[in-house]
Amino acid sequence: MSDTAFTVVERHACCGGELRFLSHQSCELGLPARVNLFLPEKALAGEAVPAIYVLAGLTCNQDTFLIKSNAVRYAARHGLALIAPDTSPRGAGVAGEDDAYYLGTGAGYYLDATAPSWAQHYRMGSYLRKELPSLMEEYFPLCRQKRGIMGHSMGGMGALAIGLSAPQTWTTISAFAPIATPSQSDWGQAVTQNYFGGDVAEWAKYDPSLLLKAGKTHPGTLLVDQGMQDEFLEKLRPDLLENAAKEAGQSLTLRRHEGYDHSYWFVQSFIQDHIQHHAAGLQ
Amino acid sequence: MSDTAFTVVERHACCGGELRFLSHQSCELGLPARVNLFLPEKALAGEAVPAIYVLAGLTCNQDTFLIKSNAVRYAARHGLALIAPDTSPRGAGVAGEDDAYYLGTGAGYYLDATAPSWAQHYRMGSYLRKELPSLMEEYFPLCRQKRGIMGHSMGGMGALAIGLSAPQTWTTISAFAPIATPSQSDWGQAVTQNYFGGDVAEWAKYDPSLLLKAGKTHPGTLLVDQGMQDEFLEKLRPDLLENAAKEAGQSLTLRRHEGYDHSYWFVQSFIQDHIQHHAAGLQ
Repeated sequence: MSDTAFTVVERHACCGGELRFLSHQSCELGLPARVNLFLPEKALAGEAVPAIYVLAGLTCNQDTFLIKSNAVRYAARHGLALIAPDTSPRGAGVAGEDDAYYLGTGAGYYLDATAPSWAQHYRMGSYLRKELPSLMEEYFPLCRQKRGIMGHSMGGMGALAIGLSAPQTWTTISAFAPIATPSQSDWGQAVTQNYFGGDVAEWAKYDPSLLLKAGKTHPGTLLVDQGMQDEFLEKLRPDLLENAAKEAGQSLTLRRHEGYDHSYWFVQSFIQDHIQHHAAGLQ
Repeated sequence: MSDTAFTVVERHACCGGELRFLSHQSCELGLPARVNLFLPEKALAGEAVPAIYVLAGLTCNQDTFLIKSNAVRYAARHGLALIAPDTSPRGAGVAGEDDAYYLGTGAGYYLDATAPSWAQHYRMGSYLRKELPSLMEEYFPLCRQKRGIMGHSMGGMGALAIGLSAPQTWTTISAFAPIATPSQSDWGQAVTQNYFGGDVAEWAKYDPSLLLKAGKTHPGTLLVDQGMQDEFLEKLRPDLLENAAKEAGQSLTLRRHEGYDHSYWFVQSFIQDHIQHHAAGLQ
């Protein structure tokens, strides 16, 4: 095990394992990138373990999910690694990238932009689907091509889209309050106009409901939790995901929780079920 | 149950209970103050439950411990409330209060200042020992005069000092990496010179090791966890706490953890044992 592709910015013992806050130069993003890794005890002893990629939502960064979700303790219990990437490139220098919380910095949507001004650096899609897993599996004791993926909000959208697009490598998928049909949301329209230069057809690769409609299914069950007092419920449209899954024959467990909102207080309330879902599929 | 003394700033469902982020006018501090409350499910149904006060460290606020410690899920499981106060008055306007991380804003040390410039507002001691519990027990379904108290670093010092000073109302005590002998630390010297106007004798009320030496003991066991790679170990001096407890006949479980540092990644690694310790003593 070498970690020369990565610089260790911080290390912290946690729950019998270790957190490593890493930075590296991303080829896809053309920029330095941050990513946080949790290795459970047996990975520290050199044994390859499966990893769950955890994707955060708008305005967040590589720290947010690990700090706020309570995921580490359950990953430690099940002997799983966690990999928490950032939510966008940082410092791309695109005009307007810091003007709105739903576009640009902190809002990469785990997709590749095609519009000229954004296309050079806003490539979180290829970064997450190819570069990052390949690097992580090369330099750390992680099982190859056997990964879980989960996320919250924009990250839930990313987890569903990435997992449905390549079910052979993304073994288990779950999401909290995902943007389930981004092509039809306000946020998605900003993406279309900016990252895609108006080409709505690009959404075919990234919209979970559209992927399902196009027959992109996963052999496992998608686990999705949704708070019914979520302040963004009308932008998230879990009902459309449910319909698309039904039509596609995709197994989906969609749990609606009365009283819960969009926050990580909601995420932490059900995180143990998600880690258990991934542990069952990955081991 | 009325909560008219408090303004609810935010509410979030969490782990079957509810978080309430509150503000109120503090008489002791002479300023508005923030405090966060977690009520477990049965308290929402009106049943009085015991509360654990959770005190954060330097630079933190009323959110930090709840966000980073993973305490809520275990409080929910054991049917306990959590009460997370701020770490200092805010906006007192004392000259120099924002100049150093270890003095002034974010650094109230859960004590009453005596030096003229600080004494008006820097009264976190009386706020925590008297005003806040009294208000909380008046307005929320909490058991009266039956409380747990825990904290981290400066908050661990506060928890030990407050609990040892009034064992009849503070039923259970625990601490993570407490400033165990503040009168002998660099941080404590800044307190002495500023909050106490040079009067080192004031520490008799607030230094856990000095309180033990003066015979202030608690009928329960103090649970203290300490990381051995804690970057502040030489300021914390758990060894002096251990000696003072031994001499005083105070039951103390001091656990030293190799590899763990001062962060909340350490706190969250052992939080379940602390909540269990309080649950056992409070129920």
